[in-house]
Amino acid sequence: MKVEPGDYVLLYLDKRRKYLVKVVSGKEFHTHKGILKLDEVLGKEYGDYVQTHLGVRFRILKPLLVDHVMKFRRGTQIIYPKDAALMVIMSGIGPGSRVVEAGTGTGALTALLAHFVRPDGIIYSYDISKKNLENAKRNLKTVGLDKWVILKLGDVTKDIDEKDVDAIFLDLPSPWLAVENSYKALRHGGVFVSFSPTINQVEKTVEALKSQNFVDYEAIEVILRKYKVEEGSTRPETFMIAHTGYIVFARKP
Amino acid sequence: MKVEPGDYVLLYLDKRRKYLVKVVSGKEFHTHKGILKLDEVLGKEYGDYVQTHLGVRFRILKPLLVDHVMKFRRGTQIIYPKDAALMVIMSGIGPGSRVVEAGTGTGALTALLAHFVRPDGIIYSYDISKKNLENAKRNLKTVGLDKWVILKLGDVTKDIDEKDVDAIFLDLPSPWLAVENSYKALRHGGVFVSFSPTINQVEKTVEALKSQNFVDYEAIEVILRKYKVEEGSTRPETFMIAHTGYIVFARKP
Amino acid sequence: MKVEPGDYVLLYLDKRRKYLVKVVSGKEFHTHKGILKLDEVLGKEYGDYVQTHLGVRFRILKPLLVDHVMKFRRGTQIIYPKDAALMVIMSGIGPGSRVVEAGTGTGALTALLAHFVRPDGIIYSYDISKKNLENAKRNLKTVGLDKWVILKLGDVTKDIDEKDVDAIFLDLPSPWLAVENSYKALRHGGVFVSFSPTINQVEKTVEALKSQNFVDYEAIEVILRKYKVEEGSTRPETFMIAHTGYIVFARKP
Amino acid sequence: MKVEPGDYVLLYLDKRRKYLVKVVSGKEFHTHKGILKLDEVLGKEYGDYVQTHLGVRFRILKPLLVDHVMKFRRGTQIIYPKDAALMVIMSGIGPGSRVVEAGTGTGALTALLAHFVRPDGIIYSYDISKKNLENAKRNLKTVGLDKWVILKLGDVTKDIDEKDVDAIFLDLPSPWLAVENSYKALRHGGVFVSFSPTINQVEKTVEALKSQNFVDYEAIEVILRKYKVEEGSTRPETFMIAHTGYIVFARKP
Repeated sequence: MKVEPGDYVLLYLDKRRKYLVKVVSGKEFHTHKGILKLDEVLGKEYGDYVQTHLGVRFRILKPLLVDHVMKFRRGTQIIYPKDAALMVIMSGIGPGSRVVEAGTGTGALTALLAHFVRPDGIIYSYDISKKNLENAKRNLKTVGLDKWVILKLGDVTKDIDEKDVDAIFLDLPSPWLAVENSYKALRHGGVFVSFSPTINQVEKTVEALKSQNFVDYEAIEVILRKYKVEEGSTRPETFMIAHTGYIVFARKP
Repeated sequence: MKVEPGDYVLLYLDKRRKYLVKVVSGKEFHTHKGILKLDEVLGKEYGDYVQTHLGVRFRILKPLLVDHVMKFRRGTQIIYPKDAALMVIMSGIGPGSRVVEAGTGTGALTALLAHFVRPDGIIYSYDISKKNLENAKRNLKTVGLDKWVILKLGDVTKDIDEKDVDAIFLDLPSPWLAVENSYKALRHGGVFVSFSPTINQVEKTVEALKSQNFVDYEAIEVILRKYKVEEGSTRPETFMIAHTGYIVFARKP
Repeated sequence: MKVEPGDYVLLYLDKRRKYLVKVVSGKEFHTHKGILKLDEVLGKEYGDYVQTHLGVRFRILKPLLVDHVMKFRRGTQIIYPKDAALMVIMSGIGPGSRVVEAGTGTGALTALLAHFVRPDGIIYSYDISKKNLENAKRNLKTVGLDKWVILKLGDVTKDIDEKDVDAIFLDLPSPWLAVENSYKALRHGGVFVSFSPTINQVEKTVEALKSQNFVDYEAIEVILRKYKVEEGSTRPETFMIAHTGYIVFARKP
Repeated sequence: MKVEPGDYVLLYLDKRRKYLVKVVSGKEFHTHKGILKLDEVLGKEYGDYVQTHLGVRFRILKPLLVDHVMKFRRGTQIIYPKDAALMVIMSGIGPGSRVVEAGTGTGALTALLAHFVRPDGIIYSYDISKKNLENAKRNLKTVGLDKWVILKLGDVTKDIDEKDVDAIFLDLPSPWLAVENSYKALRHGGVFVSFSPTINQVEKTVEALKSQNFVDYEAIEVILRKYKVEEGSTRPETFMIAHTGYIVFARKP
């Protein structure tokens, strides 16, 4: 498969130096290892090498969805794949699911949700910031998933229009204020999922879930440990992201 | 929605006491809290309560896929949702993907993969044990996902029939022996994923990936920490599953 | 060195089966692997084997302080060596230090503190339960450390008699109530150390430390991961104690 | 207590900005928050404030041993307090213990060991590098602990002069080569402790311990998690040191 104008490619030197780049004719991409003329990328096969003016070779890879998502223009906190992954699996969603999400943020989680409910599901994604929604729209278009998302300007702590949805995903400063509306919006057996950085948010959310008659609630933290693997001298990496947030799950009985 | 004969229900008392039960007329289900007559479950709505002969009330929930998967009849090690979740997300698969898996084991990971490649993807799942394949077949039927899986008796360290697959998932004692065949079976940009309990397996697999020209390999461990959330006395749970296995990712350039 | 009557020995079969036993003539010790006559232990050298009536051999080891401490008769929560170790090191205490502790509990932490302030330091250990103090006294005698401990019936949230102590160690349900008295009891540069199971206790304690003008406060959790090491199949142990408590440190400026 | 010429003080602004400084008349100390004239520190009480030329106030604290140890001039890897703490506690050493250590490195662990064996114990600390020993000597003098340490130029994989020592601490690239000599040097019941960054070193060391008839061996990792505690928004810190090394313990029966 050949690289065409407008394609996004992942220019890969090593684990720490991989860059997501849109291939536009006439443009250059500057790296610490020299300048790449993007015209030289055009027409190459995926998997081929391209060389900087300093002679350093980058591999041209086809980006995965997670490569895109991790590079979404940030305005707010991002949900990491380690967290998004468990949230998706435990929510029970899949092709055909109808899902409510709030807030949209950069659209990172939105994109993953949309990816997995295709071809006949839909994500209703709320945000109270018009700017966030516009940014998310752009990001979702880039990855070709906008078709499965209805972006909505609104506050789920006030109102959720949808009924009988399969799951609801919250990434809000005060998720406990949206617990009652979440209950009303979910179908029986539907799953509530919330992501929060502080333990105090978790405590308030779980208390709200209890008083709303949700069942099977769990508060979980996903910790990712990466390893430096070398034959004969393998060890965990020295530094790590030690905390992103806690995930709260519950089911509507 | 009403419970019908042959349905699987999740009988829920609390977080630690929830049971996946097939509702067969005339049968009983014995719990530490007394006996449930399954005929009393039939015809109830999901979300309703049912009472044991000791007067303890269980809630009738509709099971999610992960509820089933965690209860698949064990013969071999199981892949936990925390691991399966990251494996699925990082592999880039989704609706329409063509995937190779080995070994099938109980079919737990197979089921999750099948769930996410619907409606037009397919999982080719290899195992060297006929017994495993038969057990997996039964499990996949139970959750209605057998249609998206082709179970194959075979050894992927010897041969993989498929070409240009989107991702390959290995849960084998010696995954490094299947690295060369995995490379041949994957499409350009396709993702290699392997799960192993010991660090020595990881070391050997990564060395094999390096010599096979895979790129962007990573060795990762997912640690799940659960919390006991009570207003004013929140803390991590005292005991936890501290290790299931390591995940190795790589991409074919 | 020979085993003498009244000695405590550690009877060691493997990592999971090691027993702390007081050697009393005429008594027997019952294990899952058979009965040991303690008279057969008497007069043996440390390091020798002794055999049960089923022919299973146990090694006779001289117990370390931590072996004793982990077996102190429990009435309350115990502080684990992993936590006690960091508490001791970060507190700056050593030979000659004067230390206040509350509550005494089983005397487990008391014993470790006493061990490290010998020969000319002293531990003032408060508890509001006479029963705890009596149990602790017995335990401290067993390990020969009672000489360095003054056990006091009293409530440190009400009053601390000592002044200019080098460090203060709290293991109380409401440590924040003892922060003001701790400040008064500590010398300049003295270290406050508190151990609590819940994050809410930590939050309240840190707030109290802030308003009391303590500096350099830190809230820390020590997590211990054990490994199953076998040549070619090394991995973390499957289960672990995931949480004991949080440690809060601060210094009086 | 007043600051005198030649004293080391800890100049404290906040948790991340605390500096260990030797107070020499006529000198200045430069910080991001302005310049401190050290003559203004002289004669102040510990606990007092001192002001930079930009008007920022630092608190003058008396440093603890761990403050010094963490700032020892580095040439090699350092052992962190979290690891040193458990090593000390589990080794069973205390006032009066005779201990062998190798390699000395910066003398960080040496200093902690010397601190805890005072007043009548002794540390024999081996290193194969004269430069390391000289650096360590200087560091030990700074903290006033050189009197309890005999620094020795030598290779413990070749020879250990001492006999019947209470514990042995190794921080070597190939600790397994020193297992046999360690066995000979330890008294019955003495404790072997080794610290290594990679899992492969652990594996080799444990195998050597097994074949040398050590008992009760354990391989452990200490993970320290710090918390950002704010009333109502408490959470683990985002980044952490995820790995320093593994500790191996064993006893000579």
